[in-house]
Amino acid sequence: MTDEKEITGTLIAMESAALDRWGKGDPSGFLEICAPEIVYFDPYLEKRIDGIEALTELYKGIWGKVNFDRFELIDPCVQTGGELAVLTFNYASYTSDKRSAWNCTEVYRLTRDGWRIIQTHWSYTRHPGIVGS
Amino acid sequence: MTDEKEITGTLIAMESAALDRWGKGDPSGFLEICAPEIVYFDPYLEKRIDGIEALTELYKGIWGKVNFDRFELIDPCVQTGGELAVLTFNYASYTSDKRSAWNCTEVYRLTRDGWRIIQTHWSYTRHPGIVGS
Repeated sequence: MTDEKEITGTLIAMESAALDRWGKGDPSGFLEICAPEIVYFDPYLEKRIDGIEALTELYKGIWGKVNFDRFELIDPCVQTGGELAVLTFNYASYTSDKRSAWNCTEVYRLTRDGWRIIQTHWSYTRHPGIVGS
Repeated sequence: MTDEKEITGTLIAMESAALDRWGKGDPSGFLEICAPEIVYFDPYLEKRIDGIEALTELYKGIWGKVNFDRFELIDPCVQTGGELAVLTFNYASYTSDKRSAWNCTEVYRLTRDGWRIIQTHWSYTRHPGIVGS
């Protein structure tokens, strides 16, 4: 499990499987692959969230509310080093004819249970409110 | 250099020194501590930037344009593992009475030359355009 190409395939598969469930309103796919020490940013928060308990609370509030038809990971990149690996990608989800575009950074740690996310950062790609500013 | 507390102090000092120069319109403080393989997100890009050359080009366009009086790293957190370390923080910069709030994730790699940034992700904390949405 030290080969970079193999790690890249593993992490993209894990991320894609979690996003599949996310798009059906089920955040537990992500919760199951987060480490207890997860730190988390998204554009709706006033501050970073620390720890799996706080993230679980956040996700409880959106359970069943996220819904999209399909998504794509655009140009995923994995950087490895020791027991950590950094997955970055642009991302788009589609609902009917609406496209939502994001930037994402995930940091995974190789644990006894396999790779687990220790850092998540979601943000909008050129959010409409700032395009052209 | 394996002690987590020492790494935390080192990375916060490096980040703060680069931000000091950033706030005076000088992006080279960051360029000097980026690894060649840096990947980079900010809210003004349409796509992730890959590599120090592309990032240098981007920064050339804003040289001398960023200016703030002071900044703060809010609750910086460092997660370590092998040769990589993840620095996350909320951030605020101040110009006169204007406050700008951000989320930041930096991933550093320990190289022969010391710690170097391999991933940067800046995003707005509750960007005004989406507050309340």
